[in-house]
Amino acid sequence: MKIIRKIEQMQEYIRKHRRAGKTIGLVPTMGALHEGHLSLIRRAARENDLVVVSIFVNPIQFGPNEDFKKYPRPFAKDVKLAVKAGADIIFNPGAGEMYPPGYQTYVEPGELTAGLCGAFRPAHFRGVVTVVIKLFNSVLADRAYFGQKDYQQAQVIKQMVKDLNLQMQIVVCPIIREKDGLAMSSRNQYLSPEERRSATCLHEALRVAKAMVSSGIKDAGKIKREIRNIIQSNLLAKVDYIEIVDAGSLEPVKQIKGQAAIALAVFIGKTRLIDNMVWG
Amino acid sequence: MKIIRKIEQMQEYIRKHRRAGKTIGLVPTMGALHEGHLSLIRRAARENDLVVVSIFVNPIQFGPNEDFKKYPRPFAKDVKLAVKAGADIIFNPGAGEMYPPGYQTYVEPGELTAGLCGAFRPAHFRGVVTVVIKLFNSVLADRAYFGQKDYQQAQVIKQMVKDLNLQMQIVVCPIIREKDGLAMSSRNQYLSPEERRSATCLHEALRVAKAMVSSGIKDAGKIKREIRNIIQSNLLAKVDYIEIVDAGSLEPVKQIKGQAAIALAVFIGKTRLIDNMVWG
Repeated sequence: MKIIRKIEQMQEYIRKHRRAGKTIGLVPTMGALHEGHLSLIRRAARENDLVVVSIFVNPIQFGPNEDFKKYPRPFAKDVKLAVKAGADIIFNPGAGEMYPPGYQTYVEPGELTAGLCGAFRPAHFRGVVTVVIKLFNSVLADRAYFGQKDYQQAQVIKQMVKDLNLQMQIVVCPIIREKDGLAMSSRNQYLSPEERRSATCLHEALRVAKAMVSSGIKDAGKIKREIRNIIQSNLLAKVDYIEIVDAGSLEPVKQIKGQAAIALAVFIGKTRLIDNMVWG
Repeated sequence: MKIIRKIEQMQEYIRKHRRAGKTIGLVPTMGALHEGHLSLIRRAARENDLVVVSIFVNPIQFGPNEDFKKYPRPFAKDVKLAVKAGADIIFNPGAGEMYPPGYQTYVEPGELTAGLCGAFRPAHFRGVVTVVIKLFNSVLADRAYFGQKDYQQAQVIKQMVKDLNLQMQIVVCPIIREKDGLAMSSRNQYLSPEERRSATCLHEALRVAKAMVSSGIKDAGKIKREIRNIIQSNLLAKVDYIEIVDAGSLEPVKQIKGQAAIALAVFIGKTRLIDNMVWG
């Protein structure tokens, strides 16, 4: 295992291994690794000769009132977990290495960011795709692994890769959940015990929505009202958005047909959680 | 010689040659090749095993009232000239190949585009760096060649390469001029014989400016006034901008010290021409 903190050193290391014919898998993370991240690392280890896990809390994807400063950074623990799951290299650049003085180029995603989290977190996805292309160019992997929990993020990154003609395969892996259904997230650790119990309402609501769709209900408005009722019955929860969208274009649908995604963002106390479910 | 029109075919071709250890040089052009382009191709041929010349009139770098439609496209002649200068592959994608339906990701350059042509051509450089990163990802060259005539463009591209951590060397080559000093440009062919004679005023003004600096005059305002006088004495010429900037940051300077660039854009009739000179 090797920890690399400089971009040029990362590139040099990869060049050497690519010349030797090795395939490279990249798992970009902001650290605070949980079972969701580890599932990505394990899959990357199965599918590639060499696995790079990047750990970088990316300042430009946080809004001014968001949790950049308090975002958890348990680096030593992360390294242990990543290596145990199959990481060969930890890429851990500093903010000054990624955005040195004079930095000024950003990648702007498009229509896919108009709704869902994009509507509520302006500049968030610009920060995400910018750091992702920088990580891609630093690591030059064959495959990069992302979790489906950040559904919109995965779609936006796939579109960026297609639009900018990057020669990299994006692998999107299933959501990993706690036993009670809560989607794993580094932000879950912000929750008090009481909030933690309330946080299951996101998954509960999605399960009810799934049952409604399975029973033949196609009206998106009706399903969204039911989701809202379930979440609002919870005193600690405040809906940020509940949306049913076409799974490809992410445009809101009135009737569920073909591939659709139900996505929601909910504040539990001060912690914003997201979850989603995809049909078809 | 080979003409390739599909991005995936281009990538596959390059992958094969890279695996064989060949170095790749890219000369991105919009066609209508002149001696300036050919000097880039010749240099690329000296420095690389394989030279790709891309010919693509990029719609997204033209403003709504600019010359996208009438921009010259003498493709067969371009291919002959490029091959004679040393091109191995002509990469000639269509607009639908580069920007298919649903296309939505753009690269946004920053402060370097605030002045000079960037101030007069909004969205121009966004179109330039977006197409350039797409070409870079399609060709995966070791080196890409640009002319110094588009000085701001070269600086913006170098910054983008640095900011996004692209593993490619940007080579900027000297301006190639007609015998009477006019900087070579595909747009020169728009000029009537009378306009063509007037067009030498750009270079004339730059020569006078150079002489002033050499004689010890450092006041940028004084030099700019002299340039304006020379150009305005020409009935067919209309100044778009005259600027003296720091050669690195492109920020206007009041006194010439260190590396500085004088850049100008002038309409000769309806044709907009640019030229520049760099000191230090």
